[in-house]
Amino acid sequence: MELYTYFRSSAAYRVRIALNLKGAKADYRYVHLVKDGGQQHKPGYLAVNPQGLVPALVDHGQVLTQSLAIIEYLEETHPQPPLLPKDPLGRARVRALAQVVACDIHPLNNSRLLKYLERELHADETARNTWYRHWVVEGFTALEKLLAGNSRTGKFCHGDQPTLADICLVPQVFNAKRFEIDLAPFPAIRRIHDHCLTLKAFTDATPEKQADAG
Amino acid sequence: MELYTYFRSSAAYRVRIALNLKGAKADYRYVHLVKDGGQQHKPGYLAVNPQGLVPALVDHGQVLTQSLAIIEYLEETHPQPPLLPKDPLGRARVRALAQVVACDIHPLNNSRLLKYLERELHADETARNTWYRHWVVEGFTALEKLLAGNSRTGKFCHGDQPTLADICLVPQVFNAKRFEIDLAPFPAIRRIHDHCLTLKAFTDATPEKQADAG
Repeated sequence: MELYTYFRSSAAYRVRIALNLKGAKADYRYVHLVKDGGQQHKPGYLAVNPQGLVPALVDHGQVLTQSLAIIEYLEETHPQPPLLPKDPLGRARVRALAQVVACDIHPLNNSRLLKYLERELHADETARNTWYRHWVVEGFTALEKLLAGNSRTGKFCHGDQPTLADICLVPQVFNAKRFEIDLAPFPAIRRIHDHCLTLKAFTDATPEKQADAG
Repeated sequence: MELYTYFRSSAAYRVRIALNLKGAKADYRYVHLVKDGGQQHKPGYLAVNPQGLVPALVDHGQVLTQSLAIIEYLEETHPQPPLLPKDPLGRARVRALAQVVACDIHPLNNSRLLKYLERELHADETARNTWYRHWVVEGFTALEKLLAGNSRTGKFCHGDQPTLADICLVPQVFNAKRFEIDLAPFPAIRRIHDHCLTLKAFTDATPEKQADAG
């Protein structure tokens, strides 16, 4: 397999964690989202993913896009260790926790959006940072309630094994820290994040450990 | 089952289509997102879904949130007719098409976001409509390429049976029409949308047919 990745992309970070947890091998292809005006916009990468977003995974000559779809694919093709529980209600809970991050927080904070705020709506850095923090705090407030108030929460978001929910949580916490968001109101999120980072699968996937970091 | 829904919510619309396709019964509970300052913010609904978003599905006393997680749950508990193909590469493609809508278009255009643009960034109606159209056109341009350029596209987004991808596509086209976006550059999207609306499962789920419409 080949993974098109960028060290700081939170969606690529999710797939790196999933590959590590599965022990699945993928050669990394680096797409720098800032250099050269954004290598994701160049014909070379658009031929791989016409949407011009990372990550993309190539397997059996097919290009897979969208981080959650890629991770579900890895779950189906590399079932061990499972990243979703067995029971449908548990699976729905894990997917919902993942989607709070992937649908309700992350899309509002990615770089193409922040660029639009700056260029088209003339939002200055303060306004952009306020925007960023607003959506993280709103999303984390919901996530904290879903985690802290639920008996199925364990050492990880769901029980005592890492799942798709943890895979989404950790990169979002990384972003929150980068934007200096106060995480004190989110003890369950902090506890689970710190526990994830005791696992090599998570620490090997962090942005600063990537060959394209810097 | 009980579905907490709002006629114009595109995420609730997805779940209504999925329930109809599955022939699964759910009693509808209406949450008006505008009346009373937004019934989703009231204690009654927050006790159901602390995130204050629709839809939510209640089954076996458990509350399920996030439309894609709910639909995957319905797929696992009501396997017929399938909303995902059998092969992992096909499933990954369908999920990716769905996520282009659910992660890359819809989150940028929902009402809480448009309110923030208005109240905090003082974006006027013209600027907000430009924002809305920008993200729909960008997302549909990607989706059109993924659909028109792929031999697995059939009468529907993937083959000749409706899938999760069509379930996400149709409500997004409804929104695009509401904002008077020119769909001429997207013939594959238009063709598939129109084909979906030959099915009662899709037409029964449209906003205007809901008991809370108006």
